[in-house]
Amino acid sequence: VIVAGGSGVRMKSPVPKQFLELYGKPVLMHTVEAFSTIVPDARIIIVIPQEYFALWQRLCSVKEWNVKHTLAAGGLKRYDSVKNGLALVGKQGVVAIHDAVRPLVSADVVKRCFDAAATYGAAIPVVPLKDSIRKIINETSHNEDRNMLRAVQTPQCFRCSIIKEAYTNAPLNDYTDDASVAETCGHNITLVEGNEENIKITSPADMLFAEVLLKNKFITH
Amino acid sequence: VIVAGGSGVRMKSPVPKQFLELYGKPVLMHTVEAFSTIVPDARIIIVIPQEYFALWQRLCSVKEWNVKHTLAAGGLKRYDSVKNGLALVGKQGVVAIHDAVRPLVSADVVKRCFDAAATYGAAIPVVPLKDSIRKIINETSHNEDRNMLRAVQTPQCFRCSIIKEAYTNAPLNDYTDDASVAETCGHNITLVEGNEENIKITSPADMLFAEVLLKNKFITH
Repeated sequence: VIVAGGSGVRMKSPVPKQFLELYGKPVLMHTVEAFSTIVPDARIIIVIPQEYFALWQRLCSVKEWNVKHTLAAGGLKRYDSVKNGLALVGKQGVVAIHDAVRPLVSADVVKRCFDAAATYGAAIPVVPLKDSIRKIINETSHNEDRNMLRAVQTPQCFRCSIIKEAYTNAPLNDYTDDASVAETCGHNITLVEGNEENIKITSPADMLFAEVLLKNKFITH
Repeated sequence: VIVAGGSGVRMKSPVPKQFLELYGKPVLMHTVEAFSTIVPDARIIIVIPQEYFALWQRLCSVKEWNVKHTLAAGGLKRYDSVKNGLALVGKQGVVAIHDAVRPLVSADVVKRCFDAAATYGAAIPVVPLKDSIRKIINETSHNEDRNMLRAVQTPQCFRCSIIKEAYTNAPLNDYTDDASVAETCGHNITLVEGNEENIKITSPADMLFAEVLLKNKFITH
């Protein structure tokens, strides 16, 4: 499930960032191709806002892009978008939920997450933090031990039965990731090593970063 | 005080990363130039391991690079390196302590930090976290509210009297940044807005990122 529900406010662009051209094609196509290459037999579900279905289909046609996929409509929040995507997923096997704006995930990370989820139920890629971290409490802030913190990426992988149930039973709808939804329902989350380059593209500088890495074949799928 | 004490283990390079060529000159020269351009009357102290003094002087000569500066010898840990740099700083005015491998700091951020430190005593640039964050506790981990966390960058700016005293009195020597040293000695830290591109260059992908931003004149000093 590739989640592209966002409206791209931060890019100050009239087009949501998942549709922006990156090294020859929209960001979303790079991301989908990562999965279709790394896991060729995976069924691919793309969640985008319904008002962009036509734009997406036009882009696929213009780029003569034929990777097989199913569309699902995005919801109000990320939670709703993922839920709509999961509605098209069966109860057997393992599902990966991945941000559409993370085209730089490595093959190793995808495989590692699928494998760990098959074995343990829920697995996510994480990387250490390079900057010091401060925590804001009331009017002040204090240094937080970054060695105990990890930055969470996607794909977040789950046995389908676990995550479908979690998305049905979760008490809230404003989780920042899928692991938090599973955690709320009592599941333990296995952390696997991510790749540092697997950033979430949200700014023009991120686009330049992604472009130079793709151009230099820095990430192989 | 530009701190380049590190030995560059993560780059798998025989040369520490501050000396690696980036868009025509060593990373360290870009970083120093940011400050000499933004704050032309600042006195510049560069802290590098003593065994690299000769390499640095050769690089300056080869590149015909004439930005006026004083060298100080790096110590065992970052703490020791900063302390050696601060030994050359007087008690009056404001000092900025900056990572040598952060050449992408913006002019706005440098000015904002100096100004806030002059007014409040201690100021550091921070940016929000884009990834979800997990905290590791014993054998497990849980979701941490990223809205309460900030990634800390440099320059970290202080009234000279405050930070010199803090470095003299701090009980430990393994702080990850200077704000933590000041905090240990009871000082309040003012957070100002950083620029997202101001990353710490530690990997080959970071070098590509920095190069493409410099090439595109994305950061102006």
